[in-house]
Amino acid sequence: MGLQHAPFGAAEYARRIAKTRAAMEKAGLDAVFVTDPSNQAWLTGYDGWSFYVHQGVILTKDGDPHWWGRYMDSLGALRTCWMEGATIHGYADNYVQSTVRHPMQDLARILRELGLEKARIGVEMENYYYSAKAHAVLTAELPNATFADATALVNWQRLVKSEDEIAFIRKAAKISEKVVRTAIEKSAPGVRKNDLVAEIFHAGITGVGDDWGDYPAIVPLTPSGLDATAAHLTWNGAPMKAGEATFFELSGCYRRYHAPLCRTVFLGKPPQEMLEAEKAQIEGIEAGLEAARAGNRTADVCNAFLDVLKKYGLKREGRMGYPIGLSYPPDWGERTASFRTEDETVLEPGMTFHFMPALWMESWGLETTETILIKETGAAEPLCNMDRKLFVKD
Amino acid sequence: MGLQHAPFGAAEYARRIAKTRAAMEKAGLDAVFVTDPSNQAWLTGYDGWSFYVHQGVILTKDGDPHWWGRYMDSLGALRTCWMEGATIHGYADNYVQSTVRHPMQDLARILRELGLEKARIGVEMENYYYSAKAHAVLTAELPNATFADATALVNWQRLVKSEDEIAFIRKAAKISEKVVRTAIEKSAPGVRKNDLVAEIFHAGITGVGDDWGDYPAIVPLTPSGLDATAAHLTWNGAPMKAGEATFFELSGCYRRYHAPLCRTVFLGKPPQEMLEAEKAQIEGIEAGLEAARAGNRTADVCNAFLDVLKKYGLKREGRMGYPIGLSYPPDWGERTASFRTEDETVLEPGMTFHFMPALWMESWGLETTETILIKETGAAEPLCNMDRKLFVKD
Repeated sequence: MGLQHAPFGAAEYARRIAKTRAAMEKAGLDAVFVTDPSNQAWLTGYDGWSFYVHQGVILTKDGDPHWWGRYMDSLGALRTCWMEGATIHGYADNYVQSTVRHPMQDLARILRELGLEKARIGVEMENYYYSAKAHAVLTAELPNATFADATALVNWQRLVKSEDEIAFIRKAAKISEKVVRTAIEKSAPGVRKNDLVAEIFHAGITGVGDDWGDYPAIVPLTPSGLDATAAHLTWNGAPMKAGEATFFELSGCYRRYHAPLCRTVFLGKPPQEMLEAEKAQIEGIEAGLEAARAGNRTADVCNAFLDVLKKYGLKREGRMGYPIGLSYPPDWGERTASFRTEDETVLEPGMTFHFMPALWMESWGLETTETILIKETGAAEPLCNMDRKLFVKD
Repeated sequence: MGLQHAPFGAAEYARRIAKTRAAMEKAGLDAVFVTDPSNQAWLTGYDGWSFYVHQGVILTKDGDPHWWGRYMDSLGALRTCWMEGATIHGYADNYVQSTVRHPMQDLARILRELGLEKARIGVEMENYYYSAKAHAVLTAELPNATFADATALVNWQRLVKSEDEIAFIRKAAKISEKVVRTAIEKSAPGVRKNDLVAEIFHAGITGVGDDWGDYPAIVPLTPSGLDATAAHLTWNGAPMKAGEATFFELSGCYRRYHAPLCRTVFLGKPPQEMLEAEKAQIEGIEAGLEAARAGNRTADVCNAFLDVLKKYGLKREGRMGYPIGLSYPPDWGERTASFRTEDETVLEPGMTFHFMPALWMESWGLETTETILIKETGAAEPLCNMDRKLFVKD
């Protein structure tokens, strides 16, 4: 219990809470109830695979945050949160996946005890772990409170990373390099895809030196051939084949911090159109890195890439990147800014993005991406050190 | 595209859809919109790590189910669903995690096109992937439709498994045996926990023979010592120590089907109270298996275990099992019936449960569990073949 178990020091958590409270004040909120596991961990250090039941963090205008969840997980909260036990609350097990009770009834009781019965409370309306039913029960239980949509209120505070966080992401980046290198090295015709993925997991979880590997928020995406034209298929037991491209969408993870890195391998001789696309993609990434500087906007990064693509007569739609850092399944993105033409977020030093200008074509996919850090001055820094090319194994 | 990619044959999907339609009729529904990835896969075969964006399956009173999701994932749907392309729908990428648009606006358009503008539509109010915001947008877009809570309507249809499904779970069980055996064999003082987890992942994903391993819906839970008193902590880089118990909560996975299996290892000489608890737990499991027979109720299994525990002067609260089968993160349970004292579900042949009477005490945790199949007659069949004991490595 207490700070000795949390990944960061007291000053870092104080910084996060102060930022969040400033955002709450701006939004006119007395409290937020945060269900996003990444937001919970960012505010309190809580870390456990328990987000499949209702749980969350209550932050009011003063005092420590409150962690609330299933009783058996409150024991895990005592062992991972930086707060001492007084603000950790567990609900009885017969609320879990019950057809006659709902955990939000217990949460309402605690909110009442905290004097929030008539408060203006922000909830994350758009989050995996705040169900439509949870909202219906909570609002019915607290008819005199006012509920406001505070989706991503905390996520936006996470956009600029502290030095401590950047150090974690750099460790994750070293693990990412190892993981992608392993995937490329072990790729060969006849290798079953699941055996390759087993090596990828092994490389990532063993980590690098003392920096042990945590589980990434997304499993390895490693599709080959036509499966690589779809973005998010997972593996099967089919052997890799000569004449096919396979992309690796992977990330190392260090204490929940990510640094995604994608590369593509071709077994055999790639078609000419793929080699041309490779050239465009690499030149486009260089242009994007140049545009990814403090003061520019997210759209500028996207447009810099698209301008190069256009020169090569190629087209691409969809977003081309998102902020990364602390995350839990099912997504390693932070779900705030995006590298897309209509996104106008101003880039600031300390922001970290997965710059992800993948090309998914009719008969193949080509993923070459970078996790990047926005610097005080100059172009963005790619945090992984890995040749930026289509890897050809002939 | 089509049945050649789907894990099951046409008759199996027809069976599932007929069961679901019968439940819809009973609930007075014209259609259901299903967001649970497990329900989507069960109805259509869809399989991809794309549930971090909005997607789902629409089932009406007749015709094929409709899969709806992000455009790039609709390509994955074409490659994994049993339906041909006409009922697969993709929405534009600028709906994804947008602050100005919501994918439910696109879904509403499709529901209108399907003539459901004034229909009675079931939605899964209590599901990770149906957010409070999604419900608010969808209901606002279709003011003349009536929305009913159809949480777990499809999940309940999954409770009794077909022969085809049981064959998949048996394959998963073989992988589970391998995974737990690996964990026990590799456990030793000084072994870093993350290195052990790397071996666990490797064993599970390589699978057994031709039965390649898929990713389990929960990462390996492997806490030692005091961390094992909390239920859901994940690993770190600390070495295993003599004098500590470590429990392994693991599952093999074969094409999304699970067979969870937990065992506990003690490095050194276990305390006497743990050995007594072991005895009670094993005798209790035997009693539970005897009670887990067709015609009995879920509560009977729970009570049979608790009666034995009582005899030994031990107490335990909380549920002691749940149905398992097809699943996606964050949970491998089906979220319907539970082995708990207040649950009255009648057991039927073909049901499969993770019978999970773990004991979490003040200074240690002891997990010995079985995936079980309810038989036509007689006691339940444990699907894994693994010594039922506390594994002591002295």
